[in-house]
Amino acid sequence: MSRFWSPVVHTLTPYVPGEQPRIEGLVKLNTNECPYGPSQAVLRAIAEASGEALRLYPDPQASALKAAAAQLHRLSPEQVFVGNGSDEVLAHVFMALLKHEAPLLLPDISYSFYPVYARLYGIETRQVALAEDFSLRVDDLLAAGRNGGIIFANPNAPTGMALPRAEIERLLQANRDSVVVVDEAYVDFGAESADVLVQHYPNVLVVCTLSKSRALAGLRVGYALGQAPLIEALTRVKDSFNSYPLDRLAIAGGVAALQDTVGFTQMRQRIMATRQRLSQALRQRGAQVLPSSANFVFARLPAWTGAALAAGLREHRVLVRHFAQPARIADFVRISIGTDAQIDTLLHALDALLQAPQSHR
Amino acid sequence: MSRFWSPVVHTLTPYVPGEQPRIEGLVKLNTNECPYGPSQAVLRAIAEASGEALRLYPDPQASALKAAAAQLHRLSPEQVFVGNGSDEVLAHVFMALLKHEAPLLLPDISYSFYPVYARLYGIETRQVALAEDFSLRVDDLLAAGRNGGIIFANPNAPTGMALPRAEIERLLQANRDSVVVVDEAYVDFGAESADVLVQHYPNVLVVCTLSKSRALAGLRVGYALGQAPLIEALTRVKDSFNSYPLDRLAIAGGVAALQDTVGFTQMRQRIMATRQRLSQALRQRGAQVLPSSANFVFARLPAWTGAALAAGLREHRVLVRHFAQPARIADFVRISIGTDAQIDTLLHALDALLQAPQSHR
Repeated sequence: MSRFWSPVVHTLTPYVPGEQPRIEGLVKLNTNECPYGPSQAVLRAIAEASGEALRLYPDPQASALKAAAAQLHRLSPEQVFVGNGSDEVLAHVFMALLKHEAPLLLPDISYSFYPVYARLYGIETRQVALAEDFSLRVDDLLAAGRNGGIIFANPNAPTGMALPRAEIERLLQANRDSVVVVDEAYVDFGAESADVLVQHYPNVLVVCTLSKSRALAGLRVGYALGQAPLIEALTRVKDSFNSYPLDRLAIAGGVAALQDTVGFTQMRQRIMATRQRLSQALRQRGAQVLPSSANFVFARLPAWTGAALAAGLREHRVLVRHFAQPARIADFVRISIGTDAQIDTLLHALDALLQAPQSHR
Repeated sequence: MSRFWSPVVHTLTPYVPGEQPRIEGLVKLNTNECPYGPSQAVLRAIAEASGEALRLYPDPQASALKAAAAQLHRLSPEQVFVGNGSDEVLAHVFMALLKHEAPLLLPDISYSFYPVYARLYGIETRQVALAEDFSLRVDDLLAAGRNGGIIFANPNAPTGMALPRAEIERLLQANRDSVVVVDEAYVDFGAESADVLVQHYPNVLVVCTLSKSRALAGLRVGYALGQAPLIEALTRVKDSFNSYPLDRLAIAGGVAALQDTVGFTQMRQRIMATRQRLSQALRQRGAQVLPSSANFVFARLPAWTGAALAAGLREHRVLVRHFAQPARIADFVRISIGTDAQIDTLLHALDALLQAPQSHR
């Protein structure tokens, strides 16, 4: 606390990202990173962009990256906004498109950064509860009354559960007066993208990241897809904030990653196969596992709190993520899909915990 | 314009960075980049940080970079904030420390991004006119009345003129109730840094960049120095905006650049020598050249408008920067210090223009 702070700073409750451990040898299944590294084509593109040219500013509009994303999603570059990871893209979305008189609607269980952005920009929110089975119901969003925007992740986090595209389209048809933001950070692991709806609905914005299915969490590249007026709002805010949020290496690596169709397809299939094996193994051990379309599973074991399970696994050098809030997910842990070897380590650790006699409530 | 925009978007006038030309062979003296590339140590550090590890998120606090900056400036890591170029650092400074009831003071001629940030966050500003000779007068700042903060660049942009450290200290002694931001983007080319004042004054914040004197405009690394409560405000805003604004390659390259004392010293001396030669050559051709402590000079030729001179040089494939506003700098052009060969090309182009008979008003 300091008298020099702007008043808003006192009200902030910053987002806390998953732990990035400094110690070696941990099996890191806590931040939904890709267990396989980026392709050689991506690393080559980065190496080629490095060198003397780093003395020069990057292209402030990152046009090459916009073109690559546009081609991938069959849109035009004017329908693409790029930023420093989808987190920065989302921050600009909150300021540029979601700050209105009516409250922003969001699920009570979703990416926990959303309420943080809302506080940063003074945006009123209204939480819409997920159904008993943790699914997001479009009818519940529509029943919530007048809104200044709607945001949700699809697949949702940390549940991993997906909303079918037809349901998103139904929402867009019934909610035409505010922007609907579909955060597709995890879409490539089995959900249907809303990208094809962009041409038909002026109020849908799809947010994507290269951190998960493109294995580039360390490079910070994200983007948004929407009709040109939505993109223009984002660009105006971005150009009032930071002209060059993407450095030369991130632009080059991002372009190569979006063009690497073969490696991408192999990798996501591999992760989906491991997810199936993990889900089955967890269920065999008595766990409830929510149906996941993401690169993680959300699961609970009957006799365990989520906090005790996460702490127990950590003692076996396996990191998973636990969310204490809201209460109805406090017994769950979120387990990122690792390599098959990492998942074996997790299962061995779990078996050791399950065989120990102590209580975990 | 769109009904989906948040109201603030309609009010924005984004910053326009200097042109980044797509065509080859231009002598680019318009965006104050370093004419010499980063050192081999920096490029090696980037290459080593690339590879499989890019699948993992970076350290969200970029602790290695904070430590390197702290060591360089003889401060502690808690006194360092890092961001995606000093532009992002400045954006967070405006939101975290400069949004108060009283207006923000800034020179009428300074980095033209400052008023853009102020509009983005709804911060009232009061301009303080530079003196007739384009110097910034501390007494004029102090005479401007109650303020919610003060910001200026030192050396100033686009004039290149420096304020002595003793004057900054006098300002801090007389202005104890608001934050004084000293933007030192160009300080390494001959001005006195205010970094040594951080230990003594709780309300000074020094903003630095690796884009100019560290030859890394393409990597996007900036930082701020101040006492821990100021840094905490910035961190709270940053962690409510984007957890990881610096990617793994930027952190690695930034650390190596801050540690590269030898290359840094050689390079800045080289640029200062070229600046001296350019200033002299311009004066020999009748130009008024403001005394520069930066990696650029601000100059005007008696019979030329700044716009005509910039356009004429562009026809000779030399880019310089011209600012149409405010009116009293409209006859100037800002020329970045290039290599000696680039400066020769500029001077030849200038001579060709000066020998042509047409009028330029």
